[in-house]
Amino acid sequence: MKLSVVGSGPGRAEGMTGAARAALAACDLICGYTAYIDLVRPSFPDKRYFSTAMKSEVERCRAALKFAESQNVAMVCSGDAGVYGMAGLLYELWEPSGPVTLEIIAGVTAAQSGAALLGAPLMQDYAVISLSDLLVDWDVIEKRLHGAGMGDFAVVLYNPGSKKRTGHLQRACDILLQYRGGDTLCGVAENIGRDGETARLMPLSQLRDFSAGMFCTVFIGNGKTVELGGKMITLRGYEAKR
Amino acid sequence: MKLSVVGSGPGRAEGMTGAARAALAACDLICGYTAYIDLVRPSFPDKRYFSTAMKSEVERCRAALKFAESQNVAMVCSGDAGVYGMAGLLYELWEPSGPVTLEIIAGVTAAQSGAALLGAPLMQDYAVISLSDLLVDWDVIEKRLHGAGMGDFAVVLYNPGSKKRTGHLQRACDILLQYRGGDTLCGVAENIGRDGETARLMPLSQLRDFSAGMFCTVFIGNGKTVELGGKMITLRGYEAKR
Repeated sequence: MKLSVVGSGPGRAEGMTGAARAALAACDLICGYTAYIDLVRPSFPDKRYFSTAMKSEVERCRAALKFAESQNVAMVCSGDAGVYGMAGLLYELWEPSGPVTLEIIAGVTAAQSGAALLGAPLMQDYAVISLSDLLVDWDVIEKRLHGAGMGDFAVVLYNPGSKKRTGHLQRACDILLQYRGGDTLCGVAENIGRDGETARLMPLSQLRDFSAGMFCTVFIGNGKTVELGGKMITLRGYEAKR
Repeated sequence: MKLSVVGSGPGRAEGMTGAARAALAACDLICGYTAYIDLVRPSFPDKRYFSTAMKSEVERCRAALKFAESQNVAMVCSGDAGVYGMAGLLYELWEPSGPVTLEIIAGVTAAQSGAALLGAPLMQDYAVISLSDLLVDWDVIEKRLHGAGMGDFAVVLYNPGSKKRTGHLQRACDILLQYRGGDTLCGVAENIGRDGETARLMPLSQLRDFSAGMFCTVFIGNGKTVELGGKMITLRGYEAKR
């Protein structure tokens, strides 16, 4: 049978692609982290669901693959399943010669939905970095931040902080402050596509002291990022051609 | 009136979000580059359209903003309008105190749709770089490639080549080969979500001699990227925890 790994987009049902919606409508069972299940349940109230807690990703993926031996299953992830989601782990646990077909259905990740909320901060090259060190050593994350700073990338930070994990955003800003000024324009998108959706702009010097929770996605401008009409815009280069 | 800047996703209508579809259904006029218009016209055959050629982006955006003074307009971009699309330029040309409201509706960009096609190559931090030097000097692009190499980012290359612009992919690979081995797993996604959709895997040493056209998106793995079941997977780090 088939296991469809579905990115459900930023939040509300309208952020979901037609392909994602079709996969959820067609499957027999929807699996996922409880909070993501809650986002799709209103659209598919009559489906069967299997939900697991956060941090039990291996268990959740093993269960979904087992279920998919005898029924069509959708594993739902917020945003895109291929960006810090379950797509990779499912491939790791999947048996290519076994009875389950695996397909990934792309969704709108927070880099894109947050950018749309803030303006157009990713009009030039950008780097996406997670500040969670649960699965990656902090020194690797620091190396990435240095690479992003050196390359003058616009930067999107996922998982900038949580109750247990504080200080990471400040350390990330301090590294980027070695490469760009404290007045570099930054933005924080919170609860994208959900109740309490908020967009804030602030300079990098202020971002370092900002308390960003787990529903925040952080955008750090590069040398071409400006504020226009209250929005965060990274100039693509057309102004130089005009 | 309103100008909605709509990312239509990778190609077929099923790659479009519900919000994008709703904006196109609600507007009076759909503007865009001819090739992108052709992708949405089958879904909205009765709409009025205004299409312009490639490279006339400033003209296209000025016209859309002018039209939006008296009617509701949607500007359609393939993928996501905030990634090398029209979102930034429209903000540059927009008059915040004028009669036009500007909104960006996020779409699935080729980094995500191509990744889903190839497997799960972006499960760790990644950098998105365009190899087009039409608007950005090549030395800036080289600096970004060095930053991505130094940071061990998985790399997504947009605009890897065209008939007029050859040799850029080879130069990009040669820079990354200073930081990672020739056996680094890479992938090329072509015509994502369209007729002729193709996914190819190859080592970095072979990618440097690959002729990538303008409908290709190129993925270069990092130190954690492996081939599993014929797919390109960047390991997230769960295997170290198990």
